[in-house]
Amino acid sequence: MTKAVAAPDRTCVRVELGERSYDILIGPGLIADAGAQIAARLNGINAAIISDETVAELYLPILREGLAREGIESTDIVLPAGEKTKSFEHLIEAAHGVLEARLERGDAVIALGGGVIGDLAGFVASVVRRGMRFVQIPTSLLAQVDSSVGGKTGINTGHGKNLIGAFHQPALVLADTAALDTLSEREFRAGYAEVAKYGLIDRPDFFAWLEDNWPQVFTGGPARIEAIATSCRAKADVVAADERENGKRALLNLGHTFGHALEAAVGYDGRRLVHGEAVAIGLVLAHEFSARMNLASPDDARRVAAHLKAVGLPTALGDIDGDLPAPDILMHHIAQDKKVKRGKLTFVLTRGIGQSFIADDVPSSEVLGFLKEKHPQ
Amino acid sequence: MTKAVAAPDRTCVRVELGERSYDILIGPGLIADAGAQIAARLNGINAAIISDETVAELYLPILREGLAREGIESTDIVLPAGEKTKSFEHLIEAAHGVLEARLERGDAVIALGGGVIGDLAGFVASVVRRGMRFVQIPTSLLAQVDSSVGGKTGINTGHGKNLIGAFHQPALVLADTAALDTLSEREFRAGYAEVAKYGLIDRPDFFAWLEDNWPQVFTGGPARIEAIATSCRAKADVVAADERENGKRALLNLGHTFGHALEAAVGYDGRRLVHGEAVAIGLVLAHEFSARMNLASPDDARRVAAHLKAVGLPTALGDIDGDLPAPDILMHHIAQDKKVKRGKLTFVLTRGIGQSFIADDVPSSEVLGFLKEKHPQ
Ligand SMILES: NC(=O)c1ccc[n+]([C@@H]2O[C@H](COP(=O)([O-])OP(=O)(O)OC[C@H]3O[C@@H](n4cnc5c(N)ncnc54)[C@H](O)[C@@H]3O)[C@@H](O)[C@H]2O)c1
Ligand SMILES: NC(=O)c1ccc[n+]([C@@H]2O[C@H](COP(=O)([O-])OP(=O)(O)OC[C@H]3O[C@@H](n4cnc5c(N)ncnc54)[C@H](O)[C@@H]3O)[C@@H](O)[C@H]2O)c1
Ligand SMILES: [Zn+2]
Ligand SMILES: [Zn+2]
Repeated sequence: MTKAVAAPDRTCVRVELGERSYDILIGPGLIADAGAQIAARLNGINAAIISDETVAELYLPILREGLAREGIESTDIVLPAGEKTKSFEHLIEAAHGVLEARLERGDAVIALGGGVIGDLAGFVASVVRRGMRFVQIPTSLLAQVDSSVGGKTGINTGHGKNLIGAFHQPALVLADTAALDTLSEREFRAGYAEVAKYGLIDRPDFFAWLEDNWPQVFTGGPARIEAIATSCRAKADVVAADERENGKRALLNLGHTFGHALEAAVGYDGRRLVHGEAVAIGLVLAHEFSARMNLASPDDARRVAAHLKAVGLPTALGDIDGDLPAPDILMHHIAQDKKVKRGKLTFVLTRGIGQSFIADDVPSSEVLGFLKEKHPQ
Repeated sequence: MTKAVAAPDRTCVRVELGERSYDILIGPGLIADAGAQIAARLNGINAAIISDETVAELYLPILREGLAREGIESTDIVLPAGEKTKSFEHLIEAAHGVLEARLERGDAVIALGGGVIGDLAGFVASVVRRGMRFVQIPTSLLAQVDSSVGGKTGINTGHGKNLIGAFHQPALVLADTAALDTLSEREFRAGYAEVAKYGLIDRPDFFAWLEDNWPQVFTGGPARIEAIATSCRAKADVVAADERENGKRALLNLGHTFGHALEAAVGYDGRRLVHGEAVAIGLVLAHEFSARMNLASPDDARRVAAHLKAVGLPTALGDIDGDLPAPDILMHHIAQDKKVKRGKLTFVLTRGIGQSFIADDVPSSEVLGFLKEKHPQ
């Protein structure tokens, strides 16, 4: 994609995973239309909708109306909004809710919300009766371009994020692009970091297109649909090649090793740093570190930083409010990250815009030295 | 198998599931030898052993010694013995234990115990880091012939048994037949009901062999290994044909619809009825009900009852200590069972010894009438 193609009002991205293949429909109005879309594909089911308080208030009534019109009975399970909901406690609450509704294996769990609800509801769908059908209705930009694609589900524990979970593919994903209009600008920008990430992984033309067209992605319309569809396609390609994350899928972690360490460093305090913001900084750091390792040109790192800054994202450690832990503590968080294999550091590095690759055996001394340079104190 | 073939000291049954295929080794001394067997197949791993207090006391030291000899570091997580351990509470405890030990995806969770520990540990292995390797060392007869084969894992909730779980195949199963010597006779007999079940599903010759050779199965030696290996092969065949229980696998529920209702009826009180005992009664009831429906000869039901009675298993509702709920309550428990699809009763019925089949749409009025006849009051 080298120019802004006038996207149609609704787009379909197919995720090819053999008998687990499914469609992602992208466009405005899909929440109201979900009942019809689901009824057309999943015969004679009932459903449990899992949502959070914020999203339920905005969209649960239209969703339930549409389901009822098609004769789909639904129960709803509304949980608090926020990352803390991805816990054993709420997993148990939601699983009990689904069982209480006497749903069977062929029935569906529907996630209506951002990535938190999608991850939790997908895990619920995966474990109740050893696997129920699952429909994703992602309502945040991050969920539409990232968490709803690929089948990773899970919750957090005291030991870290996403340490308990399952791979469980949805039967259908409905990304209502108009629902993003009620998302806070900060959350939209955070999700945008993941959109930019796909360009940086292996789609340099897409990154260039974003540099030109990002304002239209933010305001809505065809450019937004196009950006979401391209992102879903990019993620779906990687997932199809490596469903269970044994190899290539690790590319999706571009910017995330640094990003996760920063999230841990601020104690997952969303007021200071939400995930996409951490990823934005992580993307810049990954390019800068690649330049330091003489793999890429420092110009690429500057170009990445310039674009993310233009959309209003943080791009350096110094952009984080408040004090950061010392470099060796950040290093410790990096080593804790689950992308560590048998004590060696695995990093996604890059040879330039859209030329990322997986590097094993990155010396931790180099990383520590780099963090010392970049640290604001 | 029409006669007692002198089995070798150790047998291997291969479970064919494509890239998830694995071996079940069967024979005496496999707990002491587990370290060597695991090291030979799973390269460079560390492990968390999940066990219950009773089994840990008997076998944990020899298992750990054998692992240590091969340089496999292990942590142990010892839980209370009994069905109540298959709960969210102990799932969380065990998952934390595995994370605490800083194990990675390629490391193994080892289940050392009966079906309770196997089901719980398998579920832990399935969800920690979205799937770790899993080794089963089943120590009860039921676990060796049934629960350790096929990949079903899970826990119970207030809504019923095994309602939360996953399909997660082990990488290796080590069935130490000598470990069964410390199992109580009652538990051994209960497991034997599942052995007999395989004959009744589709191996009439095996059932006839058991009628002649059951005393040797109980005392140990080649006949025990042979009976366990044939049972594993029988289950593995069904599982290979239907890994995720969409069809044929339901045959394994022969005797279980009635059996589960009886377990529920006594409030899962193991002092009154353990699972295998409920299955023994369920097997007889399934044959009697099939006769009542004019599908099989009443002689077959009498033959099944005679054999199970000979080994000391209960075979009728009246054999259960204490009062049973009224027939309509039993019927209610049957309808609650998860083998109910969209309100219709699905039963495994039979046309004779070794000729079971899946019957949809069994009229619940017939079942109720039958229960009224069989009820001791
Ligand atoms: N499964 C995966 O592959 C994957 C990938 C990336 C991220 N994730 C996970 O996703 C989660 C983050 O997702 P997120 O950023 O969507 O967080 P989120 O679900 O917490 O949503 C962010 C906030 O936006 C609100 N919101 C969502 N949609 C809205 C709408 N249309 N209008 C108004 N408010 C709305 C939510 O209530 C919430 O307060 C993290 O837990 C992360 O681990 C998972
Ligand atoms: N996953 C499956 O496919 C499947 C199939 C059938 C049953 N199950 C499950 O299996 C469980 C029942 O298994 P179980 O009957 O083995 O129960 P269990 O695990 O509770 O073991 C029975 C008792 O025997 C003790 N024990 C086990 N091995 C021993 C040994 N060698 N020496 C002395 N004591 C020993 C245990 O401590 C326990 O007290 C149920 O929860 C049932 O749902 C699962
Ligand atoms: Zn991310
Ligand atoms: Zn059973």
